[in-house]
Amino acid sequence: MIEFDIKPVSEYIAGGLRQKIDEKTKPVGALGMLEDVAMTIGRIQNTLAPELRNPHIAVFAGDHGIAKEGVVNLYPQEVTWQMVFNFLDGGAAINVFARQHGITVKIVDAGVNFDFEPGAKLIHAKVAKGTRNYLYEPAMTNEQCETAMERGANVISEINDNDCNVIGFGEMGIGNSSAAALIMSAITGAAIDDCVGGGTGLEGDGIARKCAVLRKAMEKRGPCESPTSILSTFGGFEIAMIAGGMLRAAERRMAILVDGFIATSAFLIADAIDSNVRGYSIFSHCSSERGHRRMLDYLGVEPLMNLSMRLGEGTGAAVAYPVIESALRFLREMASFESAGVNKSEK
Amino acid sequence: MIEFDIKPVSEYIAGGLRQKIDEKTKPVGALGMLEDVAMTIGRIQNTLAPELRNPHIAVFAGDHGIAKEGVVNLYPQEVTWQMVFNFLDGGAAINVFARQHGITVKIVDAGVNFDFEPGAKLIHAKVAKGTRNYLYEPAMTNEQCETAMERGANVISEINDNDCNVIGFGEMGIGNSSAAALIMSAITGAAIDDCVGGGTGLEGDGIARKCAVLRKAMEKRGPCESPTSILSTFGGFEIAMIAGGMLRAAERRMAILVDGFIATSAFLIADAIDSNVRGYSIFSHCSSERGHRRMLDYLGVEPLMNLSMRLGEGTGAAVAYPVIESALRFLREMASFESAGVNKSEK
Repeated sequence: MIEFDIKPVSEYIAGGLRQKIDEKTKPVGALGMLEDVAMTIGRIQNTLAPELRNPHIAVFAGDHGIAKEGVVNLYPQEVTWQMVFNFLDGGAAINVFARQHGITVKIVDAGVNFDFEPGAKLIHAKVAKGTRNYLYEPAMTNEQCETAMERGANVISEINDNDCNVIGFGEMGIGNSSAAALIMSAITGAAIDDCVGGGTGLEGDGIARKCAVLRKAMEKRGPCESPTSILSTFGGFEIAMIAGGMLRAAERRMAILVDGFIATSAFLIADAIDSNVRGYSIFSHCSSERGHRRMLDYLGVEPLMNLSMRLGEGTGAAVAYPVIESALRFLREMASFESAGVNKSEK
Repeated sequence: MIEFDIKPVSEYIAGGLRQKIDEKTKPVGALGMLEDVAMTIGRIQNTLAPELRNPHIAVFAGDHGIAKEGVVNLYPQEVTWQMVFNFLDGGAAINVFARQHGITVKIVDAGVNFDFEPGAKLIHAKVAKGTRNYLYEPAMTNEQCETAMERGANVISEINDNDCNVIGFGEMGIGNSSAAALIMSAITGAAIDDCVGGGTGLEGDGIARKCAVLRKAMEKRGPCESPTSILSTFGGFEIAMIAGGMLRAAERRMAILVDGFIATSAFLIADAIDSNVRGYSIFSHCSSERGHRRMLDYLGVEPLMNLSMRLGEGTGAAVAYPVIESALRFLREMASFESAGVNKSEK
């Protein structure tokens, strides 16, 4: 099994960072979560002057055997590969927001049920043309799961080698909110009904049918013994690649931007494998997909934004990116009470 | 009294905007509040292709008679003018975030207790060197209040004449969270104790003492009969200028970015004068100052962000600006299902 050597973030620098933040011309704590982000990235980079370089978002795409049941998903499986072409053409939401903020988008074929031309401008990392249907058998073999995690890690290594120190994780895969719900239930112990939401837009009865199918899948597959067995039983290849990619990003001391429900399900796996990954992670957006808030509560984290989005693709990470940049800019550019000649509080 | 002629935002364009948004390659509603912002600005500009031009944030600074009691504020009154110099030198938080997003900052002396040199690069609109202390008399005369609203409106007219169609309102004024709490209580009917918070950082006993002083002020001044009499009784000159500025911005069909607790107190006045201002307004950030959430609930609005900031200066508007830009970019740049060859949902 692939191993990761993740060091805790710097404890040493924390006091100095706190002091630098508190000397800025503002009441103590008045920049709220921006101060937390500045602390987080300062500790990741072990410096009082952290900087983000060459930001990337990697969008991992994969198909799911369960989608063929036609119950858990509102859109047909073909939409996965169609959206991959939309990403490559620059027409999807993630492309728009990434362009706005100077973020490079990399599209990864983790396991799409489509034969892309070798010349297509995506990262070819396909493990198989979609997972198997977990109603009948585990979604992946152990070997496939390991391959996916390793390939995801390698994608991140290459991005990091290109002088990038901040990486967002996005995904596309018809049916993957079901995989995420199953992983969530298995990791957190929450009842599957509390983990299932509308995905791309199911409502009422549709969600009830999705719940019933996923409940059946849980019963059939039985309890899993480890994070990786949960991942191989229910996961998508894109989720496995993200989990591996997050662990590698932390190993490489990169700042990790965690997006919505599906990306956070991958984080749950990564965190269960090595909880040191938490120190490297910023939760960008609380999805309006039902289970996400509970996932975040389980982790005890507060995301930067809550714009009622539920699109995936890494869009929450992209839209939140300028806020992260704001955090580092105030740390770098704001005057101190002393330099500006402003009185401190009378207390 | 200064009059404003505010037209309702376009009803006509709403259907076309909704259709254009729903044809984008994403599940219906999946961009959440970004879709709402796109609707709002499209309706303000009465177009399917809204654009933001030459964004500005105007920071109005003023002093408050009450600050001399030394009870409601943690910082001495001098910090108001000291911070004005910090703004002019580019060292404050608002400068940092505005630079990040290409927003022009204008600093307005609404009524600071300091003699700025005529050559200082701020907008000289001083009504008086601070308001009077509402424990003993109304903060302003009716004439001062009218002058302040008119000057605030004129500041915005000039900014609008400079081809700007989006304006954020910020403020600076030691003691102004007290003015805002009193205005909030008078407009919304909430008990003063529910309107008072820590301001720049009071805690426990300090907040209790602030409450006691403001309760006394309310008793002494008695009920006010109109929004402008509330404003002149308790307001700061900066708050009055913001109220006038917001009404003028709506009259000029500009998009208005409402910031935190104090700016929203000015909005309460503007809204009570002409509720058509609502259609032009985007609430950028929910301050962690205690009364702000309740103000927003009273208005029935949901702000874009909640970063636990409580700094004023227009910082919430500045940090949220890229999200507003994201909303217009997806509307302009995202592919439609048809143009991208992506299947729509099977429902």
